[in-house]
Amino acid sequence: MGIVIRDAYVVLPLDGKDQAGIHTLYVEDDAIAGIDQKPEGFSEDTVIDGKDRLVIPGLVNAHTHTYMSMMRNLADDLSFTDWLFNTVNPIEDRLSGEDAYWGSLLGQIEMIRSGTTTFNDQQMHIHQTTKAVMESGMRAVICRGLVGDGYDRSDRRLQEALEEMKDGERSSRLSFFIGPHAPYTCSLDYLRMCADVAEELGLGIHIHLAESRVELENMKKESGCSPIEYAQKAGVFRVRTIAAHCVQVSDSDIRILKENKVSVVTNPASNMKLGNGFAPVPELLSAGVNVCLGTDGAASNNAQNMIREMGLLALIHKGSHQSSQCVSAAETFRMATLNGAEALGLPTGSIEIGKKADLSILRLNTASMMPNNNPISALCYSADGSEVDTVIIDGKIVMRGRELLTIDEERVYYEIRSMLRRLGLL
Amino acid sequence: MGIVIRDAYVVLPLDGKDQAGIHTLYVEDDAIAGIDQKPEGFSEDTVIDGKDRLVIPGLVNAHTHTYMSMMRNLADDLSFTDWLFNTVNPIEDRLSGEDAYWGSLLGQIEMIRSGTTTFNDQQMHIHQTTKAVMESGMRAVICRGLVGDGYDRSDRRLQEALEEMKDGERSSRLSFFIGPHAPYTCSLDYLRMCADVAEELGLGIHIHLAESRVELENMKKESGCSPIEYAQKAGVFRVRTIAAHCVQVSDSDIRILKENKVSVVTNPASNMKLGNGFAPVPELLSAGVNVCLGTDGAASNNAQNMIREMGLLALIHKGSHQSSQCVSAAETFRMATLNGAEALGLPTGSIEIGKKADLSILRLNTASMMPNNNPISALCYSADGSEVDTVIIDGKIVMRGRELLTIDEERVYYEIRSMLRRLGLL
Repeated sequence: MGIVIRDAYVVLPLDGKDQAGIHTLYVEDDAIAGIDQKPEGFSEDTVIDGKDRLVIPGLVNAHTHTYMSMMRNLADDLSFTDWLFNTVNPIEDRLSGEDAYWGSLLGQIEMIRSGTTTFNDQQMHIHQTTKAVMESGMRAVICRGLVGDGYDRSDRRLQEALEEMKDGERSSRLSFFIGPHAPYTCSLDYLRMCADVAEELGLGIHIHLAESRVELENMKKESGCSPIEYAQKAGVFRVRTIAAHCVQVSDSDIRILKENKVSVVTNPASNMKLGNGFAPVPELLSAGVNVCLGTDGAASNNAQNMIREMGLLALIHKGSHQSSQCVSAAETFRMATLNGAEALGLPTGSIEIGKKADLSILRLNTASMMPNNNPISALCYSADGSEVDTVIIDGKIVMRGRELLTIDEERVYYEIRSMLRRLGLL
Repeated sequence: MGIVIRDAYVVLPLDGKDQAGIHTLYVEDDAIAGIDQKPEGFSEDTVIDGKDRLVIPGLVNAHTHTYMSMMRNLADDLSFTDWLFNTVNPIEDRLSGEDAYWGSLLGQIEMIRSGTTTFNDQQMHIHQTTKAVMESGMRAVICRGLVGDGYDRSDRRLQEALEEMKDGERSSRLSFFIGPHAPYTCSLDYLRMCADVAEELGLGIHIHLAESRVELENMKKESGCSPIEYAQKAGVFRVRTIAAHCVQVSDSDIRILKENKVSVVTNPASNMKLGNGFAPVPELLSAGVNVCLGTDGAASNNAQNMIREMGLLALIHKGSHQSSQCVSAAETFRMATLNGAEALGLPTGSIEIGKKADLSILRLNTASMMPNNNPISALCYSADGSEVDTVIIDGKIVMRGRELLTIDEERVYYEIRSMLRRLGLL
């Protein structure tokens, strides 16, 4: 199966810098097989005209909880306590596995439509997100959110996490991390166990760290250390770690993150919306930390649109640092693509021969992208996500001309509405 | 000519609060003639099915420069000096009136597509923006940007501004303000003259105030007062004034703005992008100042999408104040609609009988708007602008099913590309 994308603007990593130029791409099976040069024996089964089209590596949403998509706009402009304990948690407690499946599909529709091809998900319902991924065609790294006290390998949640990993045999697009929720919900022993299990299985860790000031203050009071230090003490950083948020981190925390090659996922909308502030992204970048971009769940964002998130990331630090040169469009693009792929250890996130064929194709002949002065700037400062026309994941076309080919959208909307009615929310 | 929008979610101002509920709207000629009750003798010429549709008052973009739309993404991540003096100004000097006309149409396409029906424009090319407005069907308040030294009523720019006002006779959608550019480009005498002319003609003033720290520092050094105090000293505030930016304002400046009923337009994207920071919007609101929302020109935004701008406004102050309850979705919605209309003195910005029929109709059956838990939150936190399906301005449908009925989009894109090539930029 071969797909050619002919004479499009393509963003390629050239001399260490992402640059847009006119190129032709050849996709064979699940991989990028040629750039401007047709591979031997290539069969042109599908030809996509690249005129007025921009091809970028599919965006990598490095931290989210897709099942929460049905909770968007249910609990806004509230204090963190009212948001979590009085609204989100009580609804969460009433969600069935099937609800989580439809919720995840809803989030995935929104992601595909706005150009995301890979996501890193922390969830609670066994087999549901994996089932949704198997159907949607997306690439995903999934972990069961784990919370607990002692060093107990028979822990129900951990057992579910391990059981769910068998789903991975059914698709090469699926992989798994171990997902201890956060230092404030996991004891030192429990975190240590998670790290041991991850190390034995050769898996990474996906954890929330230093999201809020309250978390930092409580941790200092109760454990005498910062959330970053706590995770380090538990041995978490021995394995590949993706730390979501890292808003409340000191210079010394940043050094620990860098020394231990921890990847940080920044979630600008969520951190602002919940009143947690701005992560020190310029400082993390200066220190050489691998920073990625994520939306977080729709209950705290309230979107799953990575192009919207890129816009926030490229703007807010210019505001908070009063510097027009702080966090450039080029840096933002890397955080939304290659940095996320590298954090997850996946061969995607850039358009290079041999990499997975995960591609988003945007229209350039729209009011937002016109004129085409600088496509990478346009992605950050002008685009809204609706310019995405066609999405290819793992060499398969999952959206073409904005029509989803893998998910029955109307069915998903019907099921989401029924669920909300059942929960008495609509 | 009558238009009925049947059984849609409609945002109405009820008991001083914007609330969404199922309603039927009747539009007759250029006005809203009925809500849930058919006006006598009403003729149902056009019926719009409101199922899965959200109707909001058309958004009011209270500060922009539409002609600059062709300059988007030409000069990003640069210092303010490099941006203005080495990139924007040299291009601006080479633009013809016709270029400005196509640029304005480009900006208006993007605005209509994202639900804006009224804009407040400061421009430089006589008759061009007015011509574009006459064709697009938008409602606009236009001013010629004025810069100058003495009290000289024969000033060429002022003469052009007055000459252009005759265009207003050709459409009730067009009105005019006097547009002295800023205290740092207008002497005290020149500002005084602008205020005198505005007062004599019964027009408002549209001015940039306290945008950057450099402006504030230079003004203090050279005139011993803040930009706000300078404008007050010149007598500007005797007339209805719209002040764009107001980022660098003290408590005492805020008191002056409030006492003089000056409306402030905040432009979050532009203020961040140029490194100017965050305007003190929560403080302005607390003081009772009428705050409106604007995109500013596409050279510093780089979009003309008010829904994107609402998202920024509702999020960034929560981040900078580390408070999840700072600047709510409800407040943001008002700043993007009624506050702007009131600043401009136009009978639009809310859905009430007798007001102009300026309406934006959004799809609710999209991944970003699903489920419909809270439409006003969704507009701020989830929507990207592409949900806008149909736009009615002054009782005329200008976009239906995302098809523009007043502007030939392809022609505009063709002309913009030709212009860029001529300028050697493409």
